[in-house]
Amino acid sequence: GKRPGGPAAEGGGVAGLLRRLGRLEDSRERAAELFRWLLAPVSPREFAARRWERAPLLVRRGEPGYYAGLFSTAELDAALRSGEVHFGAHLDVTSYAEGVRETHNPAGRALPAVAWDFYQNGCSLRLLCPQAFSATVWQFLSILQEHFGSMAGANAYLTPPGTQGFAPHYDDIEAFVLQLEGKKHWRIYSPRTEAEVLPQFSSANLTQAELGEPMLEVVLEAGDLLYFPRGFIHQGDTLPDAHSLHITVSSYQRNSWGDLLENLLPAALQMALEEDVEYRQGLPMDYLGYMGVAHSDVVDARRTAFVEKVQNLIKKLIDYAPIDAAVDQRAKSFLHDCLPPVLTQSEKALSVYGFPARWQDGGTRDVDILITKDTEVRLLHYGIIRLCNEEAGVMLYYTTENSRVYHKEEPKSLEIDPEYTDSIEFLLSSYPNHVSVDTFPCETLEDKISLATFLFEKGILTTRKPLVQV
Amino acid sequence: GKRPGGPAAEGGGVAGLLRRLGRLEDSRERAAELFRWLLAPVSPREFAARRWERAPLLVRRGEPGYYAGLFSTAELDAALRSGEVHFGAHLDVTSYAEGVRETHNPAGRALPAVAWDFYQNGCSLRLLCPQAFSATVWQFLSILQEHFGSMAGANAYLTPPGTQGFAPHYDDIEAFVLQLEGKKHWRIYSPRTEAEVLPQFSSANLTQAELGEPMLEVVLEAGDLLYFPRGFIHQGDTLPDAHSLHITVSSYQRNSWGDLLENLLPAALQMALEEDVEYRQGLPMDYLGYMGVAHSDVVDARRTAFVEKVQNLIKKLIDYAPIDAAVDQRAKSFLHDCLPPVLTQSEKALSVYGFPARWQDGGTRDVDILITKDTEVRLLHYGIIRLCNEEAGVMLYYTTENSRVYHKEEPKSLEIDPEYTDSIEFLLSSYPNHVSVDTFPCETLEDKISLATFLFEKGILTTRKPLVQV
Amino acid sequence: GKRPGGPAAEGGGVAGLLRRLGRLEDSRERAAELFRWLLAPVSPREFAARRWERAPLLVRRGEPGYYAGLFSTAELDAALRSGEVHFGAHLDVTSYAEGVRETHNPAGRALPAVAWDFYQNGCSLRLLCPQAFSATVWQFLSILQEHFGSMAGANAYLTPPGTQGFAPHYDDIEAFVLQLEGKKHWRIYSPRTEAEVLPQFSSANLTQAELGEPMLEVVLEAGDLLYFPRGFIHQGDTLPDAHSLHITVSSYQRNSWGDLLENLLPAALQMALEEDVEYRQGLPMDYLGYMGVAHSDVVDARRTAFVEKVQNLIKKLIDYAPIDAAVDQRAKSFLHDCLPPVLTQSEKALSVYGFPARWQDGGTRDVDILITKDTEVRLLHYGIIRLCNEEAGVMLYYTTENSRVYHKEEPKSLEIDPEYTDSIEFLLSSYPNHVSVDTFPCETLEDKISLATFLFEKGILTTRKPLVQV
Amino acid sequence: GKRPGGPAAEGGGVAGLLRRLGRLEDSRERAAELFRWLLAPVSPREFAARRWERAPLLVRRGEPGYYAGLFSTAELDAALRSGEVHFGAHLDVTSYAEGVRETHNPAGRALPAVAWDFYQNGCSLRLLCPQAFSATVWQFLSILQEHFGSMAGANAYLTPPGTQGFAPHYDDIEAFVLQLEGKKHWRIYSPRTEAEVLPQFSSANLTQAELGEPMLEVVLEAGDLLYFPRGFIHQGDTLPDAHSLHITVSSYQRNSWGDLLENLLPAALQMALEEDVEYRQGLPMDYLGYMGVAHSDVVDARRTAFVEKVQNLIKKLIDYAPIDAAVDQRAKSFLHDCLPPVLTQSEKALSVYGFPARWQDGGTRDVDILITKDTEVRLLHYGIIRLCNEEAGVMLYYTTENSRVYHKEEPKSLEIDPEYTDSIEFLLSSYPNHVSVDTFPCETLEDKISLATFLFEKGILTTRKPLVQV
Repeated sequence: GKRPGGPAAEGGGVAGLLRRLGRLEDSRERAAELFRWLLAPVSPREFAARRWERAPLLVRRGEPGYYAGLFSTAELDAALRSGEVHFGAHLDVTSYAEGVRETHNPAGRALPAVAWDFYQNGCSLRLLCPQAFSATVWQFLSILQEHFGSMAGANAYLTPPGTQGFAPHYDDIEAFVLQLEGKKHWRIYSPRTEAEVLPQFSSANLTQAELGEPMLEVVLEAGDLLYFPRGFIHQGDTLPDAHSLHITVSSYQRNSWGDLLENLLPAALQMALEEDVEYRQGLPMDYLGYMGVAHSDVVDARRTAFVEKVQNLIKKLIDYAPIDAAVDQRAKSFLHDCLPPVLTQSEKALSVYGFPARWQDGGTRDVDILITKDTEVRLLHYGIIRLCNEEAGVMLYYTTENSRVYHKEEPKSLEIDPEYTDSIEFLLSSYPNHVSVDTFPCETLEDKISLATFLFEKGILTTRKPLVQV
Repeated sequence: GKRPGGPAAEGGGVAGLLRRLGRLEDSRERAAELFRWLLAPVSPREFAARRWERAPLLVRRGEPGYYAGLFSTAELDAALRSGEVHFGAHLDVTSYAEGVRETHNPAGRALPAVAWDFYQNGCSLRLLCPQAFSATVWQFLSILQEHFGSMAGANAYLTPPGTQGFAPHYDDIEAFVLQLEGKKHWRIYSPRTEAEVLPQFSSANLTQAELGEPMLEVVLEAGDLLYFPRGFIHQGDTLPDAHSLHITVSSYQRNSWGDLLENLLPAALQMALEEDVEYRQGLPMDYLGYMGVAHSDVVDARRTAFVEKVQNLIKKLIDYAPIDAAVDQRAKSFLHDCLPPVLTQSEKALSVYGFPARWQDGGTRDVDILITKDTEVRLLHYGIIRLCNEEAGVMLYYTTENSRVYHKEEPKSLEIDPEYTDSIEFLLSSYPNHVSVDTFPCETLEDKISLATFLFEKGILTTRKPLVQV
Repeated sequence: GKRPGGPAAEGGGVAGLLRRLGRLEDSRERAAELFRWLLAPVSPREFAARRWERAPLLVRRGEPGYYAGLFSTAELDAALRSGEVHFGAHLDVTSYAEGVRETHNPAGRALPAVAWDFYQNGCSLRLLCPQAFSATVWQFLSILQEHFGSMAGANAYLTPPGTQGFAPHYDDIEAFVLQLEGKKHWRIYSPRTEAEVLPQFSSANLTQAELGEPMLEVVLEAGDLLYFPRGFIHQGDTLPDAHSLHITVSSYQRNSWGDLLENLLPAALQMALEEDVEYRQGLPMDYLGYMGVAHSDVVDARRTAFVEKVQNLIKKLIDYAPIDAAVDQRAKSFLHDCLPPVLTQSEKALSVYGFPARWQDGGTRDVDILITKDTEVRLLHYGIIRLCNEEAGVMLYYTTENSRVYHKEEPKSLEIDPEYTDSIEFLLSSYPNHVSVDTFPCETLEDKISLATFLFEKGILTTRKPLVQV
Repeated sequence: GKRPGGPAAEGGGVAGLLRRLGRLEDSRERAAELFRWLLAPVSPREFAARRWERAPLLVRRGEPGYYAGLFSTAELDAALRSGEVHFGAHLDVTSYAEGVRETHNPAGRALPAVAWDFYQNGCSLRLLCPQAFSATVWQFLSILQEHFGSMAGANAYLTPPGTQGFAPHYDDIEAFVLQLEGKKHWRIYSPRTEAEVLPQFSSANLTQAELGEPMLEVVLEAGDLLYFPRGFIHQGDTLPDAHSLHITVSSYQRNSWGDLLENLLPAALQMALEEDVEYRQGLPMDYLGYMGVAHSDVVDARRTAFVEKVQNLIKKLIDYAPIDAAVDQRAKSFLHDCLPPVLTQSEKALSVYGFPARWQDGGTRDVDILITKDTEVRLLHYGIIRLCNEEAGVMLYYTTENSRVYHKEEPKSLEIDPEYTDSIEFLLSSYPNHVSVDTFPCETLEDKISLATFLFEKGILTTRKPLVQV
């Protein structure tokens, strides 16, 4: 028999998964565990070694309820019913027939009567931001993003039987297709050229004539997973007798080494200019006379010297490249892209979000946040903050006030007195363990309590025990 | 004994009021009835004759539950708890002590622990847009706006005992103060000068020294109403032993005859220039030599003639003033300012919002909107649409896709084939009666059904009976 | 015999004219005299009574040298040679043949070899701003503008034999065609409709089919004048055996009573709103229900009252219309449009422009501007300044630092201490007489000298005698 | 004895220099010769080896007329007299006394009476763009810029006896001080830190307390030269008994290797991303957890690998760096910065600028540009054009339509049919020799003549003999 309280007792599907994750102390472990579940029974190690950015992966599970609770057509119906879904902004109506790809979005609100009429007439519905309408999708992605270290997005696709909603194309993101309902027939094609391997930008719609033979052809069923890297052309259509609902989880858009260099190189050059006079020395007076495309075939010792000099200066940039600072800049961008965290019941009870301050019986109750030297605290999650040294000062970026809608809020940050930097790094390195406020590396106890209270009020810190017993 | 189902059976307070209003067929009557309730026992006729834009009105009701259900501090607490309230954008923390008016808004989200801490320390909380957080306030204002023909807004003010949150000042709106909880001591002062009677713009914060004696001093209790016109200086503070919660309903900002003329005069001049050559004739060659401030004291026949000519041209503008078109332009602006309508259960059942098209058991159900020549329809409400003749064509402006947040959506309009104009005017003039689609003044039956279906899908039309029996 | 020093002694043509004008003391008389010469032998009085803005005027002079010295093709050649003329910005190359109007401007500088090649191939050359290249045209227009009280502009047109450069059209300016060289065949057509009489905007190019019979057909010869009001359609072509050069002097663009009202009405409404509470009173709550185009055919007492109220408010605007201030605003615009004044030798010698301060023999010489209480001064010209009361203070607008190129300089003004206002008005009203600085209505002698020195340094004042004898 | 017609016969000073330069066939030689004259008797070779960007150079010539004709205070006086000089835009009035540096510019035009009054009161006058007012300075700089391969600018400084006009500071340009009149006492200080050696940006005004001992102190006399590199602090004041006029010729602003890299690195990264998949591969999922400033002190193999990977990618950029294309982009910028060429009499006669097309005796004369296969042509100067391959096509940038005022004209370019590229490179490589049109590497004779005519019309080509004998 199974142990009480074990996985079975929690039920399967995504609800059970999230409950299990909620019992893990470390947000990084939660994220890793969710990723493991996403790929299971394939191990993350094997996936990383053989598939990630290399080749498609098909996981057939024969377990239709594997993703149960993540999202459903009934939830899409409910979202339409709420009146909050607008054509174009949130929902696309598309069709692809006889080689013609069309978008049929009317203006305004997507009410059920109109949206279902399109569906009934053979159109696909693409919900662009299911995390804004489904708390479960939101929670799912907000955990997963910490594992990727890169924004995790999603679209949901509903396709009526016997149709195709999109032309063949490739995307600029790593795609995980989670088949939620019904079936879908997929054809996947390898990148056609070296330049289309891991491309920076998505393709236009392609014609069938531009494709060769698929490298993979499969009918996905509920519970199955299909992964393919950016650059792999794909098209999916439904069987005559079954609709399809899937969600595509995406990540790693503009998250390459080259993207890091785009941040790094200007900073490296700036630093080299400041620190190394060789970069500030003038160009030769006569260089325009022997350099330039028109001179590129000429043999000239001055050309050789010029090119060597430039190459040497590029090589020497290595000495000035502020790699860690550039990573922090990317982290800052990532934190802006992030979904805000979803709290477990327990996390809520231990944070400002569950703090019992309230209006009751004509007055306020339990308002004071009484943090003392003995209060034990830790970060809410590991990945919700990042310290960056900027010209304006030390800035603490955080995700807890982000929106469920991409970039609807500006990047959120707090200017931090430099003498608090050590304490914040201490919180990061101690995580997931709790530390008592007393142990903060601040000068005075007043500072320690002040910092802890400030971070607690911002939702960044949790306490080991509830601050107030209600 | 009271009849079952009569007002008493519906319960008092705002919930009962809204149920009663929901049984009125005509949205204009609902609006008038709500306004009557707001002033009761003073009659709207008396109010219009003696108070509106003239003098404050105090209604003491001795009925603490009169506004019950409209809004409460508990609802404010719930809004804070939702995490959707942000300092600055939605909530202001203010204080006024020893003549100093301060705003204490931190950055970011207004969580209960932080907001109540400010309150506990003597600060007032002003919720800027309660209609975004309370469906009842939303419904209340969306009905009322149709009576005013001008945007109805609201702020809610919570003040701790023994404090004052704002400096004395006057506003640029007609103000209705509804005391919801506790008590508040008000002092009202008459406009100090002719120029401050019905002013176009609000005043800065005033000092006590700038005020004379109040013309009205009163302690409002729950259930009471205090109205005062724009330009009346006011200040309110709480008694030592009671907090205060009130909501201020506002209207008539920039809604004067002069504001209409601001739209009208350029259009009148444009029309005069096009139609009357006298406006296109050149100025006298020498006019700069005798006109102008430096010449204003000179007696000169040419001055007299010039001034008479100008005055005559101003007077003649009357012949070219497109008053109705200017009113339509104001109506278009007003529709953009409007809150979207809140539907009663019955309205919902008869409109696209309650249409049973849905996803069920793996497929769509009841999707077709079957409007026939015999379907009886009418406008959802009278005030939700307006036809405007514009250069681009005939535009139908409508409020049903507006946001609960002021101007968060662009003005919504549909271009209308001019041959449908008569049918839309027919719907307006028939309201609140239903008409069968057959009676639309369109050329063909196909046109009639097409127009009705289109307006039904946009949520503008309702049917007399549900289109589908579920 | 002729009197020595009479007109004959000065030579004819424009050089002689300008010399004669230079001997007139009053810039307004110079302007009037130039205008008289432009129309001679038709008198300005007759022109004003029968032609201006009414009908074309043809003046045949039989005196080919009448305009001698104003502008010539040789001067156009010299301008091209200077390298300062650019295609598009300054020179247009056009053709009109078989009903097709084309512009052939290449990019860049208009060098003689290229421009004359176009001409030789049958293209017309239009020099857009001859006043920037010809000091005589500049001087001519800068005098004339003072008479019009409205910007005087010019284009020069060179057309090869047997061609036409432009399609028939009408303009939005009063046009004076001065035939300088060769001959041109003109056809003039009356405005086709009431709406095209004195139109606000120029027409597009018209086809011959859109025209009726010309109301005037004539061959202009050198020395002749052709005037036609805005709205008169015109086309001109050359005879097979002669090229044509003419200059078109234009004025009165956007200078109508309606244009004055465009400034005046918003100011009048603003003033009415400030001073008269009737304009600030609210509109009736229910006006949207009976006003508007959809209600315009309804008989309703409320409509009648509403319309009467609006009409009454328009009529009452007369009481608040700041006509003189609006004229000053137009004058300010006009001063920005103005060409800077051209000084006669004598004016130069008596102004800061001829002041002998200089570098000589390794040091400065004659630098001090010694204005005393006895110095007699007057304005350089009457029309070069205007006082305006503005929110920022009393501003003195002036033309002396304008550019020869339209609006190349920002409007030039000096903020004036209000206590100097009287002295500046005194200078205006004394003009063209000199007044001694002593008589300025300032408080102290120091102020008088300070103001006079300041205005002298800005080129606005001249002295009766040179300040320094060199 | 000297040969007749030798240098002596041409007179000394700048006029003689320019005449001598005019006889050199190759514009590059002219530029080199002018630079030699500027440094004489120091040789350019010695200057390059020991002074350029390294150390100040003082050349005492004891020859007061060495720069005669370049610029003088009398020419400044004439410029003021022209009315074209405006305070602020063209002329700064400055003072530096008792440690306080002030600018005294009034608004508007700088008339002699006002400017000399400032001078007489001890202010310095700085003419910002003498090349716009002096044709000789224009010609001088337009030749010199070709030698520098970088914009050559100038300011002229006039300082009254016994004063100083500017606070000590350093600039971001290489400075050549040419003492034209009088004397000036200079103190030069070495850069104070490594970071101030060849700095990218000028310093703020410095106080005397921030300076150490001057490394050079000297009184410059007319005819002397003082050169100092960017970063050398300097201050100059006049002796009690003599004014000073000098001109500072500047170059090499933002013309360093680092500036080239600023163009080059983004292009290199773009190319690497397109051609090398390694740059497009994703960053490690976990890198945010061990990279970043907070982790920079941690020893971690993953850090080492990450850093090595980045360094390797930087090094590999060398393989993708389009150095020649980046140089062409700099050349394009330089051509926009350039002064337009000044033509010698002979050059003018052989170019479109002296082409005799003209208006004479009522008609055009000598209009046709008759270039045949035998016409011998060459570029006007070597440095006036540059070919760049751009996305829009092959563009020919040229300087001949630039303005004497910095960037007053947009960059000038012509799109070139790619099949003409070889011919333009042929013209560049043949320079300064003439080639017959026949030898152009175009396909047809018609193409050859068409290209030659086009370039001749644009002022880019000259012919060996005048095309027309007048």
